[in-house]
Amino acid sequence: MKKLGTEPYKGVRDFYPADMAVQKYIFKVWQDTVESFGYEEYGASVLEPAELYRAKSGEEIVNEQTYTFLDRGKREVTLRPEMTPTVARMVAAKRRELGLPLRWYSIPNLFRYEQPQRGRVREHWQLNVDLFGIDSIDADAEVISLAYYIMKNFGAKDEDFEIRINSRELLEKIFTDKLKDENDLSKAIRLLDRKEKMAPDEFEQAMKELTAEKIDLAFEKNEEVALLVDSLKQAGLTNVIFDATLARGFDYYTGTIFEIFDTNPANKRALFGGGRYDDLTSLFGGDRIPAVGFGMGDVTIRDFLETHKLLPDLKSTTDIHICTLDSEFITEAEKLAAKLRAEGKNVSVNLTDKKIGDQIAYADKHGIAAVIVIGEEEVKTGKFKVKDLKSGIEKLL
Amino acid sequence: MKKLGTEPYKGVRDFYPADMAVQKYIFKVWQDTVESFGYEEYGASVLEPAELYRAKSGEEIVNEQTYTFLDRGKREVTLRPEMTPTVARMVAAKRRELGLPLRWYSIPNLFRYEQPQRGRVREHWQLNVDLFGIDSIDADAEVISLAYYIMKNFGAKDEDFEIRINSRELLEKIFTDKLKDENDLSKAIRLLDRKEKMAPDEFEQAMKELTAEKIDLAFEKNEEVALLVDSLKQAGLTNVIFDATLARGFDYYTGTIFEIFDTNPANKRALFGGGRYDDLTSLFGGDRIPAVGFGMGDVTIRDFLETHKLLPDLKSTTDIHICTLDSEFITEAEKLAAKLRAEGKNVSVNLTDKKIGDQIAYADKHGIAAVIVIGEEEVKTGKFKVKDLKSGIEKLL
Repeated sequence: MKKLGTEPYKGVRDFYPADMAVQKYIFKVWQDTVESFGYEEYGASVLEPAELYRAKSGEEIVNEQTYTFLDRGKREVTLRPEMTPTVARMVAAKRRELGLPLRWYSIPNLFRYEQPQRGRVREHWQLNVDLFGIDSIDADAEVISLAYYIMKNFGAKDEDFEIRINSRELLEKIFTDKLKDENDLSKAIRLLDRKEKMAPDEFEQAMKELTAEKIDLAFEKNEEVALLVDSLKQAGLTNVIFDATLARGFDYYTGTIFEIFDTNPANKRALFGGGRYDDLTSLFGGDRIPAVGFGMGDVTIRDFLETHKLLPDLKSTTDIHICTLDSEFITEAEKLAAKLRAEGKNVSVNLTDKKIGDQIAYADKHGIAAVIVIGEEEVKTGKFKVKDLKSGIEKLL
Repeated sequence: MKKLGTEPYKGVRDFYPADMAVQKYIFKVWQDTVESFGYEEYGASVLEPAELYRAKSGEEIVNEQTYTFLDRGKREVTLRPEMTPTVARMVAAKRRELGLPLRWYSIPNLFRYEQPQRGRVREHWQLNVDLFGIDSIDADAEVISLAYYIMKNFGAKDEDFEIRINSRELLEKIFTDKLKDENDLSKAIRLLDRKEKMAPDEFEQAMKELTAEKIDLAFEKNEEVALLVDSLKQAGLTNVIFDATLARGFDYYTGTIFEIFDTNPANKRALFGGGRYDDLTSLFGGDRIPAVGFGMGDVTIRDFLETHKLLPDLKSTTDIHICTLDSEFITEAEKLAAKLRAEGKNVSVNLTDKKIGDQIAYADKHGIAAVIVIGEEEVKTGKFKVKDLKSGIEKLL
């Protein structure tokens, strides 16, 4: 028989326990921070009807960048490339029963069909945070504060990152006056979004093709954005700035947009961002529901934490490994383990016939902090010593 | 513009916060219990190469029951219908570096392409627990104990369920003597697996078609299974029995098999099960790695918990909602919230201009246990009262 390959599918990741521990750490900081702001978790399937993305994500995304296939009932199904259309669908479906405002979060996996390369995989996980039902900039301020506190709770200092804020409304107002054709608006916004990755000449040239003239990017400050930036500074966020050239790729933003930028000179780039999207739920009928939110990906943030040396030393979730001097002591070891588990400890028991030194080396290799060794004496006296593998200190149980 | 539908894709579920809270509760009991036995979490993508399932899951499953499609690189991709092939692939890929034995768990979502009906959805989540590298029945006993303690930690009593144990080896030994054709073995096992759902006559008839004679199902006890049942009874599991007619559908089991049965007369059925599969990793080349494990689905266990009234009253993760007598107090409310969050509390702040009664009603509707009301007096004195909404008791902060 032909041997099966052990590689995962192209562009996705296997999470062995050591990698999973990092993933769990990132998810826990996300969850603890958003829950501290009163956000509740929701979830949905990775499968969605394809039509959900055609309306607002931009055609390019659905046709060229998503996993879309026909099921056997000839339904067109997409593996979700982003969570915002899903959450808008869910809120629109039960707007009356739910009771606005809603503070919601989720950590979905998302799929993009693109060539895998460093930092760009086909599947990633993304924290999605949304506040529905509040029109005022108090909501924008809350959501941006939340993004700030996530960074702080990862151990980042204010000088490690910068929060750049702009207004899509303002951008659109200025562009609509200058564009040759009003259908070019979303092209102009995407162009602005790619600005950092282009040469200045190339950017100017592309802009000229869309507009009759060279766009002057030194916009006047918009009053509402100024108020937002001020209120965040007053709340103690020292790294907030107004950035008139900030765009964001998605079509659905209608007001405030923001991005968290890595200020490390070697790695200057947007880490994540979000904004206000007040019209998305109206695609499903009924009144519009104001909304503001952001998404934050696991790959980018892991890279940030590694670059800035902010990942903690992650131990095993197992507290104690019970080693046995002979296999005849396994029953006794299991009894002791059951007692320790009842006290809230996480305990594994040796079931091999390896030598005691190898059993201890096994615990150490797996990141288990302490061992108990069971032999004839321990069984006779009923007294057991817990040994911390790092310090070597033994304590009687 | 045509209105978009708000329904999810056929056969999958949306998890609004109230449903997500149940899901999170189930996952937490799973995680706490398996981690108490020293199991570590791993993860993988829902996308796998289709060839992974052809070898061992049975052809019927891949061809008729999975979501399988071609990607743009003409690779055949499957949305995983079960986790065991994935974990076998991962262990086989890094067997040397990992250091056996391995105690691993995961809570993946799995897809089956079938007609949705009560208790049968197209996507469900499943706890997967596996112990790799131990040949002896001590491993079988550990994994079955773990399944038992999960049920106990959900609040089930010993009389609410039964653990039925059999040996695939024993079944095969008996059948191979009696079958007309040795290729009929897996058919016979699947038939046995469906026995509870068939009329006795129908079962007998189908058995006769596979074998020359009527199979006598009163098997002799197998010595190893007897030892396993005894050791579990000695460890305090009062609801373990040997069941010679127990089968389990999958092709890859090689030794012990077991199922957890609901003993409720109105709902007699298998809740979940597992067994020993010592040959699966050898599909990837290299030596065989002994393995024993089980899978436990969210839909079935939720149904069990509801039937037996074991679901706890799940509150919001938010501890306090801060209400404001006027929108001018929002800044003050946010300052107080920031302080309370720093002390580990989960706090949301009212950002609406609703009346105070409506703000309190909002907190109550969302399951938030307590409120603080901020008005002129509170701002002046700097003293705030926390009111418990259930008891009505107020405490000064």
